[in-house]
Amino acid sequence: MSTLSPVLSRLDADFDNSLDRLFSLLRLKSISTDPAFKADCRSAAEWLVADLKTIGFDASVRDTPGHPMVVAHHDGPTGSPHLLFYGHYDVQPVDPLNLWHDDPFDPKVKELEPGRKVITGRGSADDKGQLMTFVETCRAWKVVHGSLPCRITILFEGEEESGSPSLKPFLEANAAELKADFALVCDTGMWDQETPAITVGLRGLVGEEVVVKAANRDLHSGEFGGAAANPVRILAKVLADIHDDTGRITIPGFYDGVEETPTQILKAWQGLGETAETFLGPIGLSVPAGEQGRSVLELVWARPTAEFNGISGGYTGKGFKTVIAAEAFAKVSFRLVHKQDPAKIREAFRAFVHERIPGDCSVEFHPHGGSPAIQLSYDSPFLIKAQTALTDEWNKPAVMIAAGGSIPVVGDFQTYLGMGSLLVGFGLSDDRIHSPNEKYELASFHKGQRSWARILDALTR
Amino acid sequence: MSTLSPVLSRLDADFDNSLDRLFSLLRLKSISTDPAFKADCRSAAEWLVADLKTIGFDASVRDTPGHPMVVAHHDGPTGSPHLLFYGHYDVQPVDPLNLWHDDPFDPKVKELEPGRKVITGRGSADDKGQLMTFVETCRAWKVVHGSLPCRITILFEGEEESGSPSLKPFLEANAAELKADFALVCDTGMWDQETPAITVGLRGLVGEEVVVKAANRDLHSGEFGGAAANPVRILAKVLADIHDDTGRITIPGFYDGVEETPTQILKAWQGLGETAETFLGPIGLSVPAGEQGRSVLELVWARPTAEFNGISGGYTGKGFKTVIAAEAFAKVSFRLVHKQDPAKIREAFRAFVHERIPGDCSVEFHPHGGSPAIQLSYDSPFLIKAQTALTDEWNKPAVMIAAGGSIPVVGDFQTYLGMGSLLVGFGLSDDRIHSPNEKYELASFHKGQRSWARILDALTR
Repeated sequence: MSTLSPVLSRLDADFDNSLDRLFSLLRLKSISTDPAFKADCRSAAEWLVADLKTIGFDASVRDTPGHPMVVAHHDGPTGSPHLLFYGHYDVQPVDPLNLWHDDPFDPKVKELEPGRKVITGRGSADDKGQLMTFVETCRAWKVVHGSLPCRITILFEGEEESGSPSLKPFLEANAAELKADFALVCDTGMWDQETPAITVGLRGLVGEEVVVKAANRDLHSGEFGGAAANPVRILAKVLADIHDDTGRITIPGFYDGVEETPTQILKAWQGLGETAETFLGPIGLSVPAGEQGRSVLELVWARPTAEFNGISGGYTGKGFKTVIAAEAFAKVSFRLVHKQDPAKIREAFRAFVHERIPGDCSVEFHPHGGSPAIQLSYDSPFLIKAQTALTDEWNKPAVMIAAGGSIPVVGDFQTYLGMGSLLVGFGLSDDRIHSPNEKYELASFHKGQRSWARILDALTR
Repeated sequence: MSTLSPVLSRLDADFDNSLDRLFSLLRLKSISTDPAFKADCRSAAEWLVADLKTIGFDASVRDTPGHPMVVAHHDGPTGSPHLLFYGHYDVQPVDPLNLWHDDPFDPKVKELEPGRKVITGRGSADDKGQLMTFVETCRAWKVVHGSLPCRITILFEGEEESGSPSLKPFLEANAAELKADFALVCDTGMWDQETPAITVGLRGLVGEEVVVKAANRDLHSGEFGGAAANPVRILAKVLADIHDDTGRITIPGFYDGVEETPTQILKAWQGLGETAETFLGPIGLSVPAGEQGRSVLELVWARPTAEFNGISGGYTGKGFKTVIAAEAFAKVSFRLVHKQDPAKIREAFRAFVHERIPGDCSVEFHPHGGSPAIQLSYDSPFLIKAQTALTDEWNKPAVMIAAGGSIPVVGDFQTYLGMGSLLVGFGLSDDRIHSPNEKYELASFHKGQRSWARILDALTR
């Protein structure tokens, strides 16, 4: 109470100034994927370094083959944990520009409805607004106490929206400098406008392109149909065999390492009120397509999948061509959970396919990425502390959620720095990240700052 | 003997002149698909009319919305049958021109190997060389006997290589004039260089494009994978269900109207020496993919099929995209035999697919053509007569073969003129029709003329 309360007061008092600082950062057009904005990306990195220096961080712009990283260090009391905070300063492109109601790089505060204000502009939610919540907390803490509650390293990336090509090499090359006790990653969302959330599970991914080859050339289906192998038919059979009638995946060994989600977590998810109707209704569907007898949230958060992301073979233009293709391919991906091993899944899939290829045909595989799932232990002490801190700030129990997709940096921290991550963020699903008219709730920016103050306090007490 | 022998002698004596006439026709660039050669097509039609008039035919160029038809009539003795002979004077385009050893429109006689001469040039085999075998027979018969052995109508089409758009309306509009007892169609081949053949079966075709629709937009497979229906998965399951493990098609009612091929015909096909190795080896395959326990010739000549000619859905470009497509489609075709009904097959297929579409997804069908199979009765008298005539000319038993693909004009004669067809031709599988360096065996042109003389003699005695 003695340390936290004045920090919260300071954040409240300085909020308008924090908004001005965020607007300065939002005005910088740091679109990482478009080479035309290379200098703008560097400007954003330099802006952050200058700002962090005013707080007392030892901050620097660090060159990479792509856009630079920002790395900043600040000492903390002896014996305190060492935390690494991660965010990214680059943003998505803004086209189609004509769909924006305002200049994407001229941020504003707008009132959406009485009592609900938002910050508009590209990067407001993804991820400049989010990363600045933490920076403001550090600033306030330093102003109030003359110090930070623990040793803090900050890493801001400038290529998150363009595939993070420099991240892995940078982590490897600077592992000793960047390794902390654990990471705070602020690039996720709340459950809804009132309910804070910690993302404790992220599904992993194995991608495979499978190419089935039959005859040495395309054939006329009149001349050869009925005698010659058809790779589309073989591929369809392979894909159809992957799921049984209950939606379960039939590849031997596929479920090795998959754990059942604790009953109390399933119950908590049930309490969120998401149903097949609310989840699938907006996309025009109503029947969950995965394993029978599990809720949609369990299906997308805690169960592995096999999905067919693309398929092609033979004639696919307008009209008709009576051809038997020489080859056909499919792009198949598996979402992994818990301790499923990407390498073993890949091998099991390939063996499964090989068994189904006729003797005179062949198959080729092209791997596309492989990363294990991230799953925090539901009872880890720092998770419980963070949950309590968020609950205190938002006056509503913070929920432990999962995400169906992956956030690669979390896996990279685990792989290259041997470091777990705590994923806390204040985005909402209607923030329109990557789309025109991106926004960030003013409440997210304000209470996000206060949330970090409470979390830092809880983690260091 | 009295009528036939002098005709054969005349054909032998006049062979060089017949070759000159064929060369004149081959020099005309009657490429029907390319509007640049419109005048050349008409020139070919006019050349044929002029030539037929010299024989005594009442011949005329008949306009259509596309390239003209040639129709010619010649009376025969009272009580003789009325035969319609069909061929086409148009040819395929010649590109890539650089692959031709000679000018495609400057025909030559070349010696391929000692004792084996061929006529080179576009259209030599498909179909100018073939149709002129019959014209020369008529000419020789007329010279020798002053008459023809029966009433003969000739129909030469100029759009066979570009989809025959004018054929059906022309047959309908001129049915009374064109209807004969049966048709002689000269656009097929021999079994091999020594073995003459009559094509007695042509498979029919039903084409369907099936589009499976799931969500109302493409989805991210991380966000929705495991919960949302995937149209590629649904489509793969539908296609995989169409064949059972023995290669048999499982669509209810599919085999209605399919007859077993007579044992003596199967035995004759066996005698041709075609095996899975000889048939599939050249295309790099070895295992017959159709119904188990049937020879490759039976599979492509006398059994129906379901083939998947094209499939597409989701991301099919380079690399990977973790998308769940909103829809996926396949182009499916069925080759029909004997008395299978195209309309019933289409309905049965659609019902089969509908049964496999989840309740929250939908399916659309787009029909692409439907034609029944053509099957001559193996014991029809005119077939037996023609077989004997060919056997006499080639000194080798003529075989009754089938073709896996369709020859639309044969179905059209049946539909619009209620007239069966006898398919006799002298092409070889290595004639490179539709490709550079098309050729026609000099022996085919010579013995083809003599074959028609023997067939006309046999059919009119």
